[in-house]
Amino acid sequence: MKIAIDAMGGDFAPGEIIKGAVMGAREESVGLILVGPQERLQQEISKHDVSGLDIDIVHTEEYLIEGEPPAYALRNKRNASIVLATKLVKEGRAQAVISMGPTGGVMTSALMILGTVEGISRPVVGGVFCGFTPQTVMMDMGGNMDCRPDQLLDFAIVGTVYARKLMNISRPAVALMNVGWEEGKGNAVSKEAYGLLKKSGLNFIGNIEGNDIPSGKANVIVCDGFVGNLVVKYCEGLGRTVSAWLEKTLREDLPENRIKVIAAELLSKTVRADSSGGGPIWAINGLFFKGHGRSRAFEVAQTVKSAKYYVSLDIVNALRDEVQIVRRNLSGGAAVPDQ
Amino acid sequence: MKIAIDAMGGDFAPGEIIKGAVMGAREESVGLILVGPQERLQQEISKHDVSGLDIDIVHTEEYLIEGEPPAYALRNKRNASIVLATKLVKEGRAQAVISMGPTGGVMTSALMILGTVEGISRPVVGGVFCGFTPQTVMMDMGGNMDCRPDQLLDFAIVGTVYARKLMNISRPAVALMNVGWEEGKGNAVSKEAYGLLKKSGLNFIGNIEGNDIPSGKANVIVCDGFVGNLVVKYCEGLGRTVSAWLEKTLREDLPENRIKVIAAELLSKTVRADSSGGGPIWAINGLFFKGHGRSRAFEVAQTVKSAKYYVSLDIVNALRDEVQIVRRNLSGGAAVPDQ
Repeated sequence: MKIAIDAMGGDFAPGEIIKGAVMGAREESVGLILVGPQERLQQEISKHDVSGLDIDIVHTEEYLIEGEPPAYALRNKRNASIVLATKLVKEGRAQAVISMGPTGGVMTSALMILGTVEGISRPVVGGVFCGFTPQTVMMDMGGNMDCRPDQLLDFAIVGTVYARKLMNISRPAVALMNVGWEEGKGNAVSKEAYGLLKKSGLNFIGNIEGNDIPSGKANVIVCDGFVGNLVVKYCEGLGRTVSAWLEKTLREDLPENRIKVIAAELLSKTVRADSSGGGPIWAINGLFFKGHGRSRAFEVAQTVKSAKYYVSLDIVNALRDEVQIVRRNLSGGAAVPDQ
Repeated sequence: MKIAIDAMGGDFAPGEIIKGAVMGAREESVGLILVGPQERLQQEISKHDVSGLDIDIVHTEEYLIEGEPPAYALRNKRNASIVLATKLVKEGRAQAVISMGPTGGVMTSALMILGTVEGISRPVVGGVFCGFTPQTVMMDMGGNMDCRPDQLLDFAIVGTVYARKLMNISRPAVALMNVGWEEGKGNAVSKEAYGLLKKSGLNFIGNIEGNDIPSGKANVIVCDGFVGNLVVKYCEGLGRTVSAWLEKTLREDLPENRIKVIAAELLSKTVRADSSGGGPIWAINGLFFKGHGRSRAFEVAQTVKSAKYYVSLDIVNALRDEVQIVRRNLSGGAAVPDQ
């Protein structure tokens, strides 16, 4: 297994990127293809023990810089490190690509070179968002603002594959975020999406209202990115508010250190932690991992670990299959369960 | 001051409606015009002490029944009690109308007979939604699903009048619910609404994100009814979830009765109480109060009290004035503060 690394992407590139990639490669026994200026990369590599590791370099002098307009940058830097690294996945020379580079340029590269899985129109950002419901993912969480009904269906498909593969739920319960439980409720988009979900063959349990978000009754909550962003952030805001209120309320009851423990536990359940490494961009037609620009070696190593895990799960093919099943159900009329 | 009462609207009409109206009239020293079948109404009135009270009856045999399609019912019952009661406001014979009748028919009557305040396209439902932020109202809370940018502006105007009149905030801070604080963020509608709000002359403080909803930094949070409904219900759901978690967590620390008190206080801050009486439908061109169908005499009396208070605040004229000010600001270009 080989993982392509955009060695020049990130605030601490290439030093921390290479350090972390080497750490990850040793821990996970995977090969690396580092993309960037050969000489600089070799200089960084020489700082580490790489004996027995399978490390190649793909040379390029070009790379993206934070703040550049993505389209402009990619037109002028056809050999940018992120571009060449992504092409390695496209060509089958690597099984996943990792970048900590500027979001706009990195996403544009992913879309230009790999595109989305056939039948899904846009990349999706989603995942677990609340510690009270570790078995519930929200799709989308902010990547897609104005969504069509068929995009909400896409999110349901992605969420189903996410929950099945990463949470081991064989038939994830999918719910549509809405203002009432009955069919026919909601805005124009949700009304139409309801019909698509019903015919999809996914395990669609109907609408879910705001008060049921933390109930865990759905494994996948489907909404547009405007609503998803709001739900994730509001959970955090309310968590902080209640936590502060608790600290004051409990002052007369409990010693300070115990109060701190309770308040911290509540925050850990409501405030979404920055994951310790980069995550995959869902629905890209290839495994594409993007992490924070400020990632250090530890986060890069964690991302290498995740990438290996996702490769082993064969996520992209699972998503491709799920899209086909849903598509057949929709065109065939009667719903056929997907498993 | 006279208040028109749809004596036949509500699950316990006319008995509880008349009992409550009489109670309210005595406590608040207001006159009543009861609308319904003369004989039945007089029979109910005779059960109470009405000495010294100013009570008229407008006779009709027709009234709406729960479950009837509103449009059909109103076409066939042109003298339905809610219709005649609403007309009393239109004609200036009463200063407010109260009904506990079926929502659809009651709202349709309000719109047909009184309409909305000029310049506002739809009725608005909103108010305080979270005990942690008693100085923050959300507009809209579920009445309007798919909204245009100019409707979000309408909500901001209504919210401003609400906060000024009912909360005594002279220049209420208005914020637009969004996914980021910067202008240009969000979905198509919020991007355009931002521009309108900026030019409106209202005290627009910009976008507000989910995590800032409970901060209290805005007195008026503007969003469509899909989002508003979600925010109100999610607050409730998270409140219940955290409260249940607290009860478990504190079990080893505190006696049960103290835990119950803390949990109940948290619920009282997050779960929106059914108000003890009916509230006004905002933006109707006249004072129109709608309460729960299951309202009993106490709730009816409370609504009479609210109605008198709103009449004294001259809410409808205040809203009319505010619309004119905002309209001038938008057409004139440069913003002029409204106060």
